[in-house]
Amino acid sequence: MPPRSLRIEPLPGYAPTIGRLVGMLTYARHTTLAAVEGLSMAELDHLHDDTSNSIGALLAHLAVVERGYQCMTFEDRAPTVVERASWEPALTLGPEGRRVLRGKPLEHYLHELGEVRRLTLEALATRDDAWLEQSLSAAPAMNAHWAWFHVAEDEINHRGQMRWLRARLARRA
Amino acid sequence: MPPRSLRIEPLPGYAPTIGRLVGMLTYARHTTLAAVEGLSMAELDHLHDDTSNSIGALLAHLAVVERGYQCMTFEDRAPTVVERASWEPALTLGPEGRRVLRGKPLEHYLHELGEVRRLTLEALATRDDAWLEQSLSAAPAMNAHWAWFHVAEDEINHRGQMRWLRARLARRA
Repeated sequence: MPPRSLRIEPLPGYAPTIGRLVGMLTYARHTTLAAVEGLSMAELDHLHDDTSNSIGALLAHLAVVERGYQCMTFEDRAPTVVERASWEPALTLGPEGRRVLRGKPLEHYLHELGEVRRLTLEALATRDDAWLEQSLSAAPAMNAHWAWFHVAEDEINHRGQMRWLRARLARRA
Repeated sequence: MPPRSLRIEPLPGYAPTIGRLVGMLTYARHTTLAAVEGLSMAELDHLHDDTSNSIGALLAHLAVVERGYQCMTFEDRAPTVVERASWEPALTLGPEGRRVLRGKPLEHYLHELGEVRRLTLEALATRDDAWLEQSLSAAPAMNAHWAWFHVAEDEINHRGQMRWLRARLARRA
């Protein structure tokens, strides 16, 4: 991992406001990676109680949420029924997620997250700050800046849960 | 509560980049208030397990973290030893927080949060976007924009935990 930056500012290769947003997305991702570093498959699959999502399922969730907002913002459309179906159950989490989102090593989740993020950063690098402020045709109450803030915000929310769950994993040992 | 905005954009009364940041802080706060709406004192004080922080303690934490960053950014100084002592144990959480941060109704926490936030918004309204990008003299690796992003980020992290804890409160009934 590159060193964590404690600055939000324009970044080379991006429009100024987009660069600040990329700084937030990158910082959030850095903390997620730190929260899951070194977890075994058993730890990623562990269910704290009968309504908990595993840490692995939460990582899978982050990747599909980001794919969804790629459609909404870069392709200016709602996800199709087929796309949504392929993202379930990571999108919804819950019982089906507990059943099927398991048996994968950390590298699997990190690869998924990295691939999705690569496409996000490539697309953001080609946009300007006026684009960032535009309303989404698939969700007119929302603008692209909120959508990408929300991707970071959803990740941070679940990172808080991952930290909580990870602290209880350690006590099982 | 005012209606939740799904736009990040310049806001009246603030410099453009500061306005976008205020939009993020406000959205995060909106979701925190929704996460704790209607909780009783017993629910705010409930400890899920012997290392959990109560939802009330997490709310108290948000207010003192914001006070700390007010010192660092608006007053350009680290908190004093006396200030830090007055913010403990909400700042550190843990055993002492479990012991003393209890017995307060939701209104107490919401009043604290509201008062601190009022001062934050008043101060941000008097700054410009060049200020937002400056390094903090009390923490030169950090700029003011990161500091206020981090206040939102810490709140969102703990909101994720509040949602998780609240879902388990319901099941006790």
